[in-house]
Amino acid sequence: MKIIIAPDSYKGSLTALEVAENIETGIKKTIPEAEIIKVPMADGGEGTVQALVDAHNGQIIEEEVIGPEGDRVKAFYGILNESQAVIEMAAASGISYIDPATADPRKTTTYGTGQLIKSALKRGASHIILGIGGSATMDAGVGALQALGFSFKDKAGQEIGRGGGQIGKIASVSKENLYPPAEELYLEIACDVSNPFYGENGAAYIYGPQKGASQKQVEELDQNFRKFNQFVRDNYNKDLQQLPGAGAAGGLGAGLITFLNGELKEGADIVARANQLAAKLKGADLVITGEGQLDYQTVNNKAPIHVAHLAGAEGIPVLAIAGSLGEDYQKVFQKGIDAAFSIINKPASLNKIILATPELLQETARNIGRLITLDID
Amino acid sequence: MKIIIAPDSYKGSLTALEVAENIETGIKKTIPEAEIIKVPMADGGEGTVQALVDAHNGQIIEEEVIGPEGDRVKAFYGILNESQAVIEMAAASGISYIDPATADPRKTTTYGTGQLIKSALKRGASHIILGIGGSATMDAGVGALQALGFSFKDKAGQEIGRGGGQIGKIASVSKENLYPPAEELYLEIACDVSNPFYGENGAAYIYGPQKGASQKQVEELDQNFRKFNQFVRDNYNKDLQQLPGAGAAGGLGAGLITFLNGELKEGADIVARANQLAAKLKGADLVITGEGQLDYQTVNNKAPIHVAHLAGAEGIPVLAIAGSLGEDYQKVFQKGIDAAFSIINKPASLNKIILATPELLQETARNIGRLITLDID
Repeated sequence: MKIIIAPDSYKGSLTALEVAENIETGIKKTIPEAEIIKVPMADGGEGTVQALVDAHNGQIIEEEVIGPEGDRVKAFYGILNESQAVIEMAAASGISYIDPATADPRKTTTYGTGQLIKSALKRGASHIILGIGGSATMDAGVGALQALGFSFKDKAGQEIGRGGGQIGKIASVSKENLYPPAEELYLEIACDVSNPFYGENGAAYIYGPQKGASQKQVEELDQNFRKFNQFVRDNYNKDLQQLPGAGAAGGLGAGLITFLNGELKEGADIVARANQLAAKLKGADLVITGEGQLDYQTVNNKAPIHVAHLAGAEGIPVLAIAGSLGEDYQKVFQKGIDAAFSIINKPASLNKIILATPELLQETARNIGRLITLDID
Repeated sequence: MKIIIAPDSYKGSLTALEVAENIETGIKKTIPEAEIIKVPMADGGEGTVQALVDAHNGQIIEEEVIGPEGDRVKAFYGILNESQAVIEMAAASGISYIDPATADPRKTTTYGTGQLIKSALKRGASHIILGIGGSATMDAGVGALQALGFSFKDKAGQEIGRGGGQIGKIASVSKENLYPPAEELYLEIACDVSNPFYGENGAAYIYGPQKGASQKQVEELDQNFRKFNQFVRDNYNKDLQQLPGAGAAGGLGAGLITFLNGELKEGADIVARANQLAAKLKGADLVITGEGQLDYQTVNNKAPIHVAHLAGAEGIPVLAIAGSLGEDYQKVFQKGIDAAFSIINKPASLNKIILATPELLQETARNIGRLITLDID
């Protein structure tokens, strides 16, 4: 029996690889002869670097960079091999670094994310996977581009400052000082929302308030996004408002692929491809996926659904093992997951369950293993 | 696919039949064409009357009787059909009626249990299943026999009083006033412990303290049990000390079968036979059993293990669906249960889980149904 174990991480508890390892241990108690292939998954959000590094036997690089508010923060990214790297923007420019009650999203910058990109380029990466979830920023990626050497100037020829409050002023762009390897870079950007660049469903109106923007600041930022796009239309023959997902992460992805080579893609698809999931699935008898909580949100391009989609194309049954089965989790049944089990096996608090997660995963997998090897009917 | 659903009750939450009905609902969501037979189970303890009444479309009879301390209590028993009845001694003479801190186990009586037996006899029962768990009494069943008309007298020819403090005085027994149908009665007594009648593992030493006996009272009661047995040996050519389980329920079962026709048996076996489980299992593809908590104690003759034993004899796979999987639940794997699942699917308190148990049972059964109908391998 060939079994693919391809879970997402259990946030706050175990990495995707750790989840897979514990499921493997449980299955092997019942089916020691099973051929098991572990494929740590992620969806471009938290855990993406770890999942890809684990899948590639890569390396986590720690790097001190400029945080969203200009102070220095300890960030990290992953080197997968000689040419590939993976970055979570939140590691450098994430919302966890700010207090939305006091933050000014006209000033927060993606500069640190650009520093991570530059660091990866220095190490030889020419293909960078960039997860853009969890951002604290509204600068259309201008800060990241500045870190790579792009120069953005206003009408007076003055270098603009950092933050979304400045991006409406751009009158010219120079890449005279661009770090040269950035020219050869291909950015694969994990983006799972479809919000437009500006307007009532755009970056400022939808995501501004949670990053600390007042209503007045939201309006100011939205105007700046409109001006930025006008500049891009006038000078680059692109219309970011036509790009689905351009409003994600304060326009970071849209800004980056305006000035660099790259694409916005579905996060789980990027991770599955990087980890060669489709090839590994060939000939499998069963796929086990999972995530911390399976619920109605899981069907929105989360890793388990993408795994189920790929397995479905091969006609392979798919089980999900989750920490919790949350609200309307049954929606996953229409998206290719055949059955779902929670690891929880007694009344307990979340904290207790998190501590016991390795054992609970093993026991659940063990029982599933026992069940699937029964000769029923 | 033929599926037998034979769970114990979930104590404090659902009856065995209710558990079975919810599992059936969940399975039918996935396998609507399944032939499902529900067999409510019990082990002779709490829930035995309800499980048997439900299985037989019988009737619960409520009856006011004398409680263990002489006050009146509202008890109940079950009529299964024209000849069979089922009684839980605890309904009349149970420990829930007393406060062990103040109770005097030299005085508590099984009189009320005898009244229930008499009531069932009046309704035509000639075969009574009697569960003896949860007793408050230490009277070797003398109270129950008194209620049926037996007369126990001391050397002076005086009728002895009620309670274990009196049973050492018995010098003669008369059944002159015995309720005549008791002569034709067959008592099938559910007894799941093997403690002897007296001595260090006997009724007084092991169970006396939890019924309120002081160390001195334990010694007095143990002496009375020795004297009672001596009387039985001298007059009835029986030695209760040689009867495994004679120490159960303060000697109730042993006392009853000294003076009436009956046997001590394993509780789950009695219930399974009464509900014709073995016959219903023939040709089944799967058996689903369960109980509120599956743990190391389950292997001690509890209902799920007996179900697994009968299913194993037919080579039928057995799944358990439990509220919780408790300490060392894995022991059930050596006793014929093939796989075990908890219904719990998120962090929650016991109270919340109890309220959600019907839905959780349905969802767990539904997912098991989905899993077993997959074509894996």
